Amino acid sequence: MKKELSAIEAKFEAQKIAFGPMYFQAMVAMRDLGVLEYISSHRKGVEIASIIRDMDLSEYTITLLIESAEVLGVVEVEGTIVRISKIGFFFLKDEMTRVNTNFMNDVCYLGAKEMTESFKTEKPAGLKVLGDWPTIYQGLSKLPEPAKKSWFEFDHYYSDNAFPEALKIVFKKKHRNLYDVGGNTGKWSIACAEFDPQVHVTIHDLPVQVAVAKQNVQEKDLSDRISFREIDLLDSAQKIAPGADAIWMSQFLDCFSKEQILTILRNAHQASTADTTLYILEPFFDNQNFPAAQYSLVATSLYFTIMANGNSKMYRLNDMKELLDTAGFEVVETYPLIGDSYHTILECKIKH
Amino acid sequence: MKKELSAIEAKFEAQKIAFGPMYFQAMVAMRDLGVLEYISSHRKGVEIASIIRDMDLSEYTITLLIESAEVLGVVEVEGTIVRISKIGFFFLKDEMTRVNTNFMNDVCYLGAKEMTESFKTEKPAGLKVLGDWPTIYQGLSKLPEPAKKSWFEFDHYYSDNAFPEALKIVFKKKHRNLYDVGGNTGKWSIACAEFDPQVHVTIHDLPVQVAVAKQNVQEKDLSDRISFREIDLLDSAQKIAPGADAIWMSQFLDCFSKEQILTILRNAHQASTADTTLYILEPFFDNQNFPAAQYSLVATSLYFTIMANGNSKMYRLNDMKELLDTAGFEVVETYPLIGDSYHTILECKIKH
Repeated sequence: MKKELSAIEAKFEAQKIAFGPMYFQAMVAMRDLGVLEYISSHRKGVEIASIIRDMDLSEYTITLLIESAEVLGVVEVEGTIVRISKIGFFFLKDEMTRVNTNFMNDVCYLGAKEMTESFKTEKPAGLKVLGDWPTIYQGLSKLPEPAKKSWFEFDHYYSDNAFPEALKIVFKKKHRNLYDVGGNTGKWSIACAEFDPQVHVTIHDLPVQVAVAKQNVQEKDLSDRISFREIDLLDSAQKIAPGADAIWMSQFLDCFSKEQILTILRNAHQASTADTTLYILEPFFDNQNFPAAQYSLVATSLYFTIMANGNSKMYRLNDMKELLDTAGFEVVETYPLIGDSYHTILECKIKH
Repeated sequence: MKKELSAIEAKFEAQKIAFGPMYFQAMVAMRDLGVLEYISSHRKGVEIASIIRDMDLSEYTITLLIESAEVLGVVEVEGTIVRISKIGFFFLKDEMTRVNTNFMNDVCYLGAKEMTESFKTEKPAGLKVLGDWPTIYQGLSKLPEPAKKSWFEFDHYYSDNAFPEALKIVFKKKHRNLYDVGGNTGKWSIACAEFDPQVHVTIHDLPVQVAVAKQNVQEKDLSDRISFREIDLLDSAQKIAPGADAIWMSQFLDCFSKEQILTILRNAHQASTADTTLYILEPFFDNQNFPAAQYSLVATSLYFTIMANGNSKMYRLNDMKELLDTAGFEVVETYPLIGDSYHTILECKIKH
């Protein structure tokens, strides 16, 4: 939004914010009722009368959806012919957009009404629409559908696609003893154990997560290669043990506030020697190739506010570097991941 | 959205739709917590650290709101200085934008989640979040706050500003006997009686509305100049009586579907002679000077879908002209209202 807007343009942009929820729901309806797909299937455009004739929907519905979509640039209308636009194509077919839309609608929409309250209390005041938990992490396995499906699809979309490249980067060095701090369900630890047959991994997480991870590790028959350490990393009295070649934190620190991140990094620091490498994988919102990605990541921060825990967020690359510096680490290498990933890996050593 | 977008731009636009509700709530929070006002009060910009110091809000809250506002172009950030943009100015200060935002948040936001269901059933499936009525018209006087205040502010903003110009247009001709069809609370009828001391007005509406109008008319001491006719205009057996010089329908027809509008116009036709003038005042969404107005009016159609009655909408000018033609009227004059009005007056006569 660099160019200077006229008052008329600025007033228009303000209306786009003001009616964002209404048009969002209209486009979800247009997609879910199959109208966008029907229009998309006619590449050269289709008569509006044909849509009304062919679909089991009222003329009112078709007319209003097309009028809304035209305002948004999702379809283009010429006389009585309507065709899908590039924006409409992405809204309908692009995986990132589909995942974002469902996450917004199924997980965040109703809870977002409590945004002001969430900021006032620094608690996820919107979470109550899904269940009665202090943070969403206690509720993930019990989320009602379709929130559960949409949450995991969103999580999967923004994390798993980072694994193949990340494994290559981490195992450029030989690591015999790797700590997966915030190991969650054990996905990354299992991927490491399968990637390098000589590495031993120790998952560090809360007891409730360790229980889930243990089961996943047993199912993969990797119990001799993956150990577990129950630990609450927000309690600075619970120390990470020395002895790791590598400490890995994958999309873990964005679950915490700056103060909490500092506590965790200082804990990692006391467990590190000059030979220990700390790896941090995060999607930094200011280190993205495309504006759509930045837009999604800042919105994801707001999800943390209203639904997750009320005090975490996506960070700028420099914010993280400053926190690492304060905790006594220096970044020795910065790897942007290639392909469809939104992530950066910071390779860190303790400062001397 | 006429220019050809690149795939990257189109994907970005699709994300703006996908996260519209999230950013909407973030900007409402930023406004309601006073952060936008604080930034606006420093015309040359203000240090982010000063906002954190001066306001009773966390660094987390301030940081996240500014990051969100920057993504939307609501503020501009240079280093550690933040200032409000033109878009932010309109979001904060412009009456239309304020009224639209509160209407969206207080009346429509939660109900909009039922958009798909509303289209499927052609019922206002979102209305249940405000109360248990078949349409919002039965519930208006009983709406919970802040929905009630926001509904009436919205209604007031988009209708009352039309009155002064409309009176001048209608009373260019001498009308002794005017029917205010869909007279609602009697506002227009009272304005007519006060504008022209010789006119007699008859409010036509449902019994429940007539009761309210009667009280308002009595309070203004105009009971000898304003009469009442209880009528259900969707029942074609209930005829409008002949004898009017003018039949006036102000923002009335947009409360109905095309089929219903035809029923009402045919009823007006059977009551008309060559000497009768039919006036229709409507905000036609394709007959606006500014894109912000079109954007608001199409969104207002969606409000009718989810909250009002499930089957009415704002119309295109030509849609209304075609309905008038089918009902036997011709448009003899089209008056666009000047100033801040969004309305057009159609002056009609029966065809010969």
